[in-house]
Amino acid sequence: MESCGEEAEEKEFLAQLISIIVPKVFVPPLNFAMVEPGIYRSGYPGKKNFPFLKQLNIKTIICLDPVQYRNEDYLIAENVKLFQYPVNKNKEPLTLIPQYLLADALSRMLDKANYPILVHCNKGKYRVGCAVGCLRKLQNLSKTFIFAEYQKFSGAKARVLDQQYIELFDVSLVKYDKESAPEWL
Amino acid sequence: MESCGEEAEEKEFLAQLISIIVPKVFVPPLNFAMVEPGIYRSGYPGKKNFPFLKQLNIKTIICLDPVQYRNEDYLIAENVKLFQYPVNKNKEPLTLIPQYLLADALSRMLDKANYPILVHCNKGKYRVGCAVGCLRKLQNLSKTFIFAEYQKFSGAKARVLDQQYIELFDVSLVKYDKESAPEWL
Repeated sequence: MESCGEEAEEKEFLAQLISIIVPKVFVPPLNFAMVEPGIYRSGYPGKKNFPFLKQLNIKTIICLDPVQYRNEDYLIAENVKLFQYPVNKNKEPLTLIPQYLLADALSRMLDKANYPILVHCNKGKYRVGCAVGCLRKLQNLSKTFIFAEYQKFSGAKARVLDQQYIELFDVSLVKYDKESAPEWL
Repeated sequence: MESCGEEAEEKEFLAQLISIIVPKVFVPPLNFAMVEPGIYRSGYPGKKNFPFLKQLNIKTIICLDPVQYRNEDYLIAENVKLFQYPVNKNKEPLTLIPQYLLADALSRMLDKANYPILVHCNKGKYRVGCAVGCLRKLQNLSKTFIFAEYQKFSGAKARVLDQQYIELFDVSLVKYDKESAPEWL
């Protein structure tokens, strides 16, 4: 039993030593970025991203993906609220993100009570790109800026259909309470 | 005199009519994005971007460019402080942004008294990309994230030399006061 205790002590000593020698590194999820104070965007977060999300103190996750949520343990451990919208990527000829669903997601994004929010899909490119693009429309920003921002995240495989979706999106569907809306709107 | 007054009235009426019919559009500068609350990045702003910058209530501009500053009227009219660093792009074999200059610019970026700050170079790609990359190093973020963010703004013409510069940058050169540093550091 004594040698077992010594072994545990040695292990702990080694762990401490490593934590001193190897610098602390935070790993943001794929395509992570800040959208506005209180709103972050990214691809699907995984275990190695949890210390980073914890540091941001994420309170709400908005997931734009139909598959059953994969990070339930994290939600419970960190007391994070989840709003999941079962939407697929915009795709010719008939798959389009239902406007009423995205409008509802945007309403959540405009409620400061939910901040800090992380909105994510699978890769943080297309569905999240549409959500952020529609948010930018609400901010009266130029289409040049909106599409340039979309393309920064989609890269070479930018979808014209997504840009058309943003352009045609009816912002009047987004209901929000002016009292709890952020100052930058 | 009377007809002149009528003409002015008519002009004003037309201007009001146009402002109702044509929706208000804010035009961010090239490659504009938020870095952290209180810090924005972009390319060189021009006249058409001023209403947007005014809306952000920019208090300080950090310019990473050696040419005499071009927006003096705006600085005076809006009471904006300018810190200009006469640096050129990193370029093989011998042009490198002096570390002490970038460290000084970063110190300004870590002083909340200067917020909101806009840091810009000419296109918002390389010099600003280096500044933001070095800031991310101070935040202990992974190189994967830092380089991905750099590439979102540089696009296809990403410079390996810039990424090497960020990797080798000595963050201990950046002096800042913990009292006035932002919470996210």
